[in-house]
Amino acid sequence: MTEKTIEDIDRLIHEPARLLILCNLYVVESADFVYLQNQTGLTRGNLSSHMSKLEEAGLIEVNKEFVGKKPQTLLRLTDAGRQALSQYGDTMTDLLDGIATE
Amino acid sequence: MTEKTIEDIDRLIHEPARLLILCNLYVVESADFVYLQNQTGLTRGNLSSHMSKLEEAGLIEVNKEFVGKKPQTLLRLTDAGRQALSQYGDTMTDLLDGIATE
Repeated sequence: MTEKTIEDIDRLIHEPARLLILCNLYVVESADFVYLQNQTGLTRGNLSSHMSKLEEAGLIEVNKEFVGKKPQTLLRLTDAGRQALSQYGDTMTDLLDGIATE
Repeated sequence: MTEKTIEDIDRLIHEPARLLILCNLYVVESADFVYLQNQTGLTRGNLSSHMSKLEEAGLIEVNKEFVGKKPQTLLRLTDAGRQALSQYGDTMTDLLDGIATE
């Protein structure tokens, strides 16, 4: 384990719901709100609230589009979001080095 | 990234302060309160409060001893705590697979 203090863990990203949203977005170009709800197991209200926080922080972009007559809310990581998540991943990987059994 | 939902992340362990305490304890037989305070950057009050929560949950044991005339508070992981942290490590490693740059 590399030494870490409480300052090293980015709480905006570490919060479980937001972490799941970001990890899901990391592996796709963009993702629909309903898809993310299914992936994360979050309620509509929770996902919506965390989406706003991540957008305000500049980690994701949110766009509303129509697919045919259906409105869709599309989320995607910004470059800053991708970088912040990578850095968080490094911090956690360092911290958990030697602890995971896999 | 292996798919995870919000239920998969153990919040008792995920909380940054508690995670740091547990990770520090993972690599030693036992650790002194003051040592852990230095390692984690937590205040006395915060460390004390998280220590109680972890003890109540059965993840750590706390023993007060005298070293010469000095009282010492010693913390150590229980077997259950070691197992829970390992499992948490596996969950997070799965989740962050492909995200860390290192």
